[in-house]
Amino acid sequence: MQQLKPSNCLLGSSSIIRRQHFLIRVLGCSSNNQTHHHQSRMNSMICGSDLEADALGILRSITPALDPSRYKGQAGKIAVIGGCREYTGAPYFSAISALKIGADLSHVFCTKDAAPVIKSYSPELIVHPILEESYSVRDDEDKRSISDDVLAEVVTWMERFDCLVVGPGLGRDPFLLDCVSNIMKHARQSNVPIVIDGDGLFLVTNCLDLVSGYPLAILTPNVNEYKRLVQKVLNCEVNDEDAPQQLLSLAKGIGGVTILRKGKSDLISDGETVRSVSIYGSPRRCGGQGDILSGRQLCPYVDASVAVFVSWARQYISSGKGESAMNPTILGCIAGSALMRKAASLAFENERRSTLTGDIIECLGRR
Amino acid sequence: MQQLKPSNCLLGSSSIIRRQHFLIRVLGCSSNNQTHHHQSRMNSMICGSDLEADALGILRSITPALDPSRYKGQAGKIAVIGGCREYTGAPYFSAISALKIGADLSHVFCTKDAAPVIKSYSPELIVHPILEESYSVRDDEDKRSISDDVLAEVVTWMERFDCLVVGPGLGRDPFLLDCVSNIMKHARQSNVPIVIDGDGLFLVTNCLDLVSGYPLAILTPNVNEYKRLVQKVLNCEVNDEDAPQQLLSLAKGIGGVTILRKGKSDLISDGETVRSVSIYGSPRRCGGQGDILSGRQLCPYVDASVAVFVSWARQYISSGKGESAMNPTILGCIAGSALMRKAASLAFENERRSTLTGDIIECLGRR
Repeated sequence: MQQLKPSNCLLGSSSIIRRQHFLIRVLGCSSNNQTHHHQSRMNSMICGSDLEADALGILRSITPALDPSRYKGQAGKIAVIGGCREYTGAPYFSAISALKIGADLSHVFCTKDAAPVIKSYSPELIVHPILEESYSVRDDEDKRSISDDVLAEVVTWMERFDCLVVGPGLGRDPFLLDCVSNIMKHARQSNVPIVIDGDGLFLVTNCLDLVSGYPLAILTPNVNEYKRLVQKVLNCEVNDEDAPQQLLSLAKGIGGVTILRKGKSDLISDGETVRSVSIYGSPRRCGGQGDILSGRQLCPYVDASVAVFVSWARQYISSGKGESAMNPTILGCIAGSALMRKAASLAFENERRSTLTGDIIECLGRR
Repeated sequence: MQQLKPSNCLLGSSSIIRRQHFLIRVLGCSSNNQTHHHQSRMNSMICGSDLEADALGILRSITPALDPSRYKGQAGKIAVIGGCREYTGAPYFSAISALKIGADLSHVFCTKDAAPVIKSYSPELIVHPILEESYSVRDDEDKRSISDDVLAEVVTWMERFDCLVVGPGLGRDPFLLDCVSNIMKHARQSNVPIVIDGDGLFLVTNCLDLVSGYPLAILTPNVNEYKRLVQKVLNCEVNDEDAPQQLLSLAKGIGGVTILRKGKSDLISDGETVRSVSIYGSPRRCGGQGDILSGRQLCPYVDASVAVFVSWARQYISSGKGESAMNPTILGCIAGSALMRKAASLAFENERRSTLTGDIIECLGRR
């Protein structure tokens, strides 16, 4: 196994083994100031006195083994709700990321206009052209009928999904958002985790009831989306002096949903605990790609990464390996953030200023 | 030629020759416990006392030489019937696989919605937008007229095809399946082999007459599709204790069609003999990619591989090289299975958990 950073190599001694589990390859070095305890208790990983989570330890623990006894579908089935006439890139990036990370199947539910385009990006995805925007709907009766059809179509698939991602490239058409609200209500009744990003956060910020009190809702706001949430829920401005406390209050204020606040460091809270993920994003390490990447919004697709890892964390805990007190959404956010930051860092090393989202996705499976 | 596994290398001595016929490169090592007899009688390859076929020997034997005296079309012309509004990836993967394996031409017959998308995946394919789903048909008269047009269009091409693949991404629209039934009846009259996969198996399981007693029909069911066939034909549940005997009974029960049962080992029967192909799929070799790959549905495209090799096996036998008693569909299934398993294994070695179907197809022509 090759070392990424000679000074940090953890597995350098096992020079004979060249091909191992890819995530261990991906993470062939530990981050700067962390000692890796593969057998350490998960609780200490997320509840240590330091705010920084042992992201790599968590990532390694909850990633399922590539084990021949596993059967179809166990690695996760993800659905992305997004994609409209205007936006088609974001839902594609989310859905393909889920596959590259290791999900079994990745579906996209989008508008009829968006579907042929998203399909054409990759034959690997299953794309359902079912949503409609107001401009293609004639009257209220038409709306009711379409709305019913949309829900019926998604419902037939719902129980097969381990996690929904709502929002990438969704747009803000009121009728479309109404239909998506219905989908979210049904997912909630079915206890399916929902990662909410992009225009999904616009929807949720204006209708907090959709997620309030649902412990399997995960919000992944960027700076601006976070600002709107804080204003709406806490009725104040963002306070960067005490960001962890404010995030804690915000998550508690929405009834214990989990929030991943994207930034130079990603901050994660469920209203009970706060953890941060800073690895691979420090300006010291890579000349400031953290800012450049977030400036170019090259890392919005942490949503899919979180969706896959939340599915894996729930499996991990339900299989009795973890401690039942652990919150799988926190574990999933930590691991999902770490993997995406790692991929972004690798892509940036190669492409520098020319880094595109597709370059990062190519790095999701690479050392 | 480089060795893949030093202990298994068969052709390691011919170190000078770096570029050879691609299939020989692909198969630069023999499987674990097989001795390669390039000149051995084909009968011993498929009728040995061991269930395991000499898949690599058969593959090498029936693959036509890259001979400059051969003319265009001799390497096979394949048509895939599949692709609807919802599914476009599966027919693309099948059709492009046929070309990568070595067919001369690969056509796709799909719905009008699916055609632009499938065309956009690759300019290498010939895509015919002729099928229709119920939602785009007005009344019974419309149906009759469309159904006639569809058949007329396919019939003009039929005699040029060496094999049809029916089912990848076909969907289950009743009107569309009616049209496809007519195509199958015509192919049968014309003595064109038909490989049936995916939704084609749904159609055939509900209408066994379409294939019953047709020796050039090849069914390639996965676990669930096999289960439905067994229930329908044998009126019992799948018996994994005596899988070969049950497969034999099933193939005989459908009047001597050939069935390739996909699984950790692929099992093949025509109602007279049963053979298995296990190479490249053992968890020992690649950490369990057999299950994982089938779990991620990364190997459904054995249908195209079988189609190409059945065409080649028929040529091989009709040219007098083989023995006339051999069943070309059995030979084609064995070789098609071996090649696809090899490609999947190579892709998995490189991409591990991130392996996508496209990665496997890229390996169809690689060592």
